[in-house]
Amino acid sequence: MQSNTIYEPVQEDLNKVEDWLRSVSKVDFSWLAKLLGYSLKGGGKRIRPALTLLVGKFYNYNLDSLLPMATAVELLHTATLVHDDAIDKSSVRRGRPTINTVWGEDAAVLLGDYLFAKAGELAATTGNLQVIKLSAQTIMTISSGELNQAFNAFNLKQTREDYFQRVSSKTASLFCLATESGAILSQAPEKSIKALKGYGHNLGIAFQIVDDILDFIGTEEELGKPVGSDLAQGTLTLPAMLLLERYPEENPVKSLFQNRDKQENIGLAIELIRTSSIVQECYGVASDYCSKACHNLSLLPDNAIRQALVQLAEYVINRKR
Amino acid sequence: MQSNTIYEPVQEDLNKVEDWLRSVSKVDFSWLAKLLGYSLKGGGKRIRPALTLLVGKFYNYNLDSLLPMATAVELLHTATLVHDDAIDKSSVRRGRPTINTVWGEDAAVLLGDYLFAKAGELAATTGNLQVIKLSAQTIMTISSGELNQAFNAFNLKQTREDYFQRVSSKTASLFCLATESGAILSQAPEKSIKALKGYGHNLGIAFQIVDDILDFIGTEEELGKPVGSDLAQGTLTLPAMLLLERYPEENPVKSLFQNRDKQENIGLAIELIRTSSIVQECYGVASDYCSKACHNLSLLPDNAIRQALVQLAEYVINRKR
Repeated sequence: MQSNTIYEPVQEDLNKVEDWLRSVSKVDFSWLAKLLGYSLKGGGKRIRPALTLLVGKFYNYNLDSLLPMATAVELLHTATLVHDDAIDKSSVRRGRPTINTVWGEDAAVLLGDYLFAKAGELAATTGNLQVIKLSAQTIMTISSGELNQAFNAFNLKQTREDYFQRVSSKTASLFCLATESGAILSQAPEKSIKALKGYGHNLGIAFQIVDDILDFIGTEEELGKPVGSDLAQGTLTLPAMLLLERYPEENPVKSLFQNRDKQENIGLAIELIRTSSIVQECYGVASDYCSKACHNLSLLPDNAIRQALVQLAEYVINRKR
Repeated sequence: MQSNTIYEPVQEDLNKVEDWLRSVSKVDFSWLAKLLGYSLKGGGKRIRPALTLLVGKFYNYNLDSLLPMATAVELLHTATLVHDDAIDKSSVRRGRPTINTVWGEDAAVLLGDYLFAKAGELAATTGNLQVIKLSAQTIMTISSGELNQAFNAFNLKQTREDYFQRVSSKTASLFCLATESGAILSQAPEKSIKALKGYGHNLGIAFQIVDDILDFIGTEEELGKPVGSDLAQGTLTLPAMLLLERYPEENPVKSLFQNRDKQENIGLAIELIRTSSIVQECYGVASDYCSKACHNLSLLPDNAIRQALVQLAEYVINRKR
């Protein structure tokens, strides 16, 4: 199933989010307008704003606050991508040159700052202090998770626990914000807020695991960036961890992390992972998180929205990009 | 007069801001704690939080909201410094190696993001939506101003209007936030809020002009960074603009901007500016802004606080660092 079929219950309002994103780019300063337009142009899956809107449908669906929040969540996501690319010196994202490649790292840092702040402004227009604080805390969690990743680059001594901690901070936290804010802004009961936050958390972890798998098994065309980017950055993800567990002595990941010049090890690691059962095992872990996510929904009304969220969990596993 | 004498009416509470800043560094993740501690350690003039507190003293001095806001303003300031240094690849700030020098540009970008977000969280604890929005909008204004500066690096075709526009965005906006938020949170009447915002704006412009003068006439020890840093970055400030106006043909700034390799032109420009009346002229412009700032205070109660704000304007002109 395609994500746009799943989004059907909120598709009309997701189009409004696109309008809002376009209006964010309409600023007087022409360079800023150009950078904003480039970074916010379609190509993303818009899964996070879709989550905020879908979750909002369970209770009091109030677009006055849900629309700015859904837009804010997408802006936060975009800001993190822009900064990540600058930090990693990545040259391609979604098949297009990154902001840092076209306009320089300085422009990327400042654009990201602007996007974070614009997200904060939009979160503030919800008028809901809890959601405003959660938004700020989510950026703290994400940057802290990314910092953890940066300080652990090329570090072989990382446990699965470290990995899940990092994934939780850098990815799942924003999925949490998307669902929790949707629940809070639609005045969901406390138990439902907690359940939907749990759904966001588990879905986010599954999403990142699949991202980490695709970085090994996808094609450059599907990924919109080079295969094996994580290893090139020295980021130890679940598939690479499993490979290290299986071959603790002679291992291309180990060799690469000990000698970063040995770039040919990236290709070797990709080949070993692709031809082993590691991929299947990782998908198993991701599926478990998706099952947990669906389980979180059990106390929610059993309606078309809940069905869409279950389908979204399936989509997260089956997606190719 | 020293800034700490001027701060006297709020010194006790400024010490509490220091406590709050220290508590910001107390996080579980040890790397983050180290980076936060390093970036927030004393050495700054704390002029922005002092402004928020001093302004708050005119009306209902409510520390429950003024303390988090004063802390937020200092965090915002620190975040911009951390990102600026990363962008400019500056190696020294306040006489100490910069975050990017010690821990890398990636760490500096992520630390800055964390600081911005923490500021947002603290602004949110004031519970005042207007102040929360102003904080977000200020970051938008600052990053937009910095972006403008980055895109105009080594551009000779800049007018004084461009300069004041940039200074207003990148520096005065945060002084505005400091004073306006202090006024709003202490329930100042609308007219006073406007007047204090005007004071912040004019003081901020004067502050930046003096910064730009000191970059030419200060010593490395006083500045805590190399003299002539602005020219090295290709940033055209008021003293350099005046030098270009005086010698439109043969000019070291012109030569430098046309050929960045000619670093010796920085020393020539410094020498020419130091020995001309340009310094005096720039101080004249800064003094005019300080006079405007003091004029903004005319409708405020004529008390010790107003006196302190007038003295602060004098200090901004006379400071050596």
